[in-house]
Amino acid sequence: MNKLSDLQQMISDAVNELTYPEHPGQLYEPISYILSLGGKRMRPALLLMACELFGGDVTKAISPALAIEVFHNFTLMHDDIMDNAPLRRGKTTVHEKWNQNVGILSGDVMLIEGYKLMMQVDNSILRQVLDIFNETAVGVCEGQQIDMEFEQQHDVRIDEYINMIRLKTAVVLGGALRIGALIGGAPAKDAALLSTFGEQLGIAFQLQDDILDVYGDPEKFGKLVGGDIISNKKTYLLIKALELAKGEDAAELSNLINATKFDNTEKVAAVTRIYNSLQIRQYAEEAMQAYADNAFNALEQINLPEDHKQYLHDFADGLLVREN
Amino acid sequence: MNKLSDLQQMISDAVNELTYPEHPGQLYEPISYILSLGGKRMRPALLLMACELFGGDVTKAISPALAIEVFHNFTLMHDDIMDNAPLRRGKTTVHEKWNQNVGILSGDVMLIEGYKLMMQVDNSILRQVLDIFNETAVGVCEGQQIDMEFEQQHDVRIDEYINMIRLKTAVVLGGALRIGALIGGAPAKDAALLSTFGEQLGIAFQLQDDILDVYGDPEKFGKLVGGDIISNKKTYLLIKALELAKGEDAAELSNLINATKFDNTEKVAAVTRIYNSLQIRQYAEEAMQAYADNAFNALEQINLPEDHKQYLHDFADGLLVREN
Repeated sequence: MNKLSDLQQMISDAVNELTYPEHPGQLYEPISYILSLGGKRMRPALLLMACELFGGDVTKAISPALAIEVFHNFTLMHDDIMDNAPLRRGKTTVHEKWNQNVGILSGDVMLIEGYKLMMQVDNSILRQVLDIFNETAVGVCEGQQIDMEFEQQHDVRIDEYINMIRLKTAVVLGGALRIGALIGGAPAKDAALLSTFGEQLGIAFQLQDDILDVYGDPEKFGKLVGGDIISNKKTYLLIKALELAKGEDAAELSNLINATKFDNTEKVAAVTRIYNSLQIRQYAEEAMQAYADNAFNALEQINLPEDHKQYLHDFADGLLVREN
Repeated sequence: MNKLSDLQQMISDAVNELTYPEHPGQLYEPISYILSLGGKRMRPALLLMACELFGGDVTKAISPALAIEVFHNFTLMHDDIMDNAPLRRGKTTVHEKWNQNVGILSGDVMLIEGYKLMMQVDNSILRQVLDIFNETAVGVCEGQQIDMEFEQQHDVRIDEYINMIRLKTAVVLGGALRIGALIGGAPAKDAALLSTFGEQLGIAFQLQDDILDVYGDPEKFGKLVGGDIISNKKTYLLIKALELAKGEDAAELSNLINATKFDNTEKVAAVTRIYNSLQIRQYAEEAMQAYADNAFNALEQINLPEDHKQYLHDFADGLLVREN
């Protein structure tokens, strides 16, 4: 088994070797540009990992893994337009560097290029692999749409939120693992279980992200603490707090959310105080643990040697205790 | 053989039966909306026609034909955003009716839904069909990009223009015919010839469209005469006129193009006078005829019974002599 970091390196190398036609330049340059911005290449590395776990030849999984990375970057290119984001990984976004039309059309062609890469599998599994890819891609679009609707929606429920993060971020992890497993020769049942492992782990990971925004060590977390609070982002923590807060807490929380002028530090401190009084952190950590348990239960049922399961277990542990 | 109008009706019926999930509504309603705006359903009907020509069961080609229609409407949805168009077939465009983000994301999901429909073919031809679909889809994106670049580009050459209309409008006709032929059981060689027939015919058809904008009977043509002239659209006629005009003609044409204030009727009359003096209509008709001849030459080489070839010939004749 290759180490995860080696798999990530393989993807980075393969991404660097991807070439696109020279013309029309404004269609293809943005693809190379956004792919060059880096990132951890976690999704495609998971696809390679799944292939190896079932004894497959990892070189046969490189193109489908690249498909996942190209697809992921297509969603980033279009999401950045929709979110009006000026920066992506600290660099100018495509629609800012070129223009919005370039971002739309280059994104479109990236989705097609994703299919072309995903098709580089044996005929015997082509339909299965593409069915999973289609389902994953539709899920991500649904997740993005629901996420945008949440911005206008006052009464988001916890189950709606979990479904949104499942679609927007977790199904790609599940899909990548499932496709990798099939390429590696896994029976459909084990591939599906591995997909569940990835999806549930993805939800747990996103919940951890919500927790770290408030309770993480800013140096280790690498983000401004309280960014979600400042922007009123509907995270698990805020939704749970809105659900539980009564009386004075409810009124104060509402005031904090609706204030148009405020001091960032004071707002973060005030909302955190309310979270603390409602034990929101504990609720969030229990939820996170519940999804992690779902992931480990699925893992347990997969027909794989114990050391391979341990590899996945270690990977999940590494993901979920970045720091908190 | 079904009549073309019957095939178009089959598609209309099948489009009406397409259903999408209820949630998230803003993701799926725009798909049903744009598909409900009608249109001649020519592209999918051609796919069915090709299937029948080779003795295939037309019902097996319905889903892939819908894929072509869904794909085509995806391109319209995104093109309308890029062109800032308020209307499509006389109705409000998706990004105007909802908003731009809805137009981007619904379009994305339509492209994926197109793949899902296109995959409804036998395993034996799945890869071939998808390879053609990918190539077609990439071509359309390239054509749209080149078309947008032409708006900023002063010196467009005739060969560049022909390549643009080939990519933007003709490759889909070729792709639809080729996929339909394969579903109908055609040998790869005949499917490729039929594709060439469609592509070359598509170029001829677009050139005819350029001619009709200036020389068509407005009642039969159904559009304002001279619309391309008023908007300085780089058609075959304008590009050829810019290439051929010398001295006074060149200066006048340049003035007409660069004028910011003008009377529409006078501009159309003045540009048409220059076209006439340069015999632009004849050049355009010769070019159109040359591409039509290419189409008929390809048709001639296809291994099909004479009456089936005649069917295609009649179809092409009907397309190319709408009126002029």
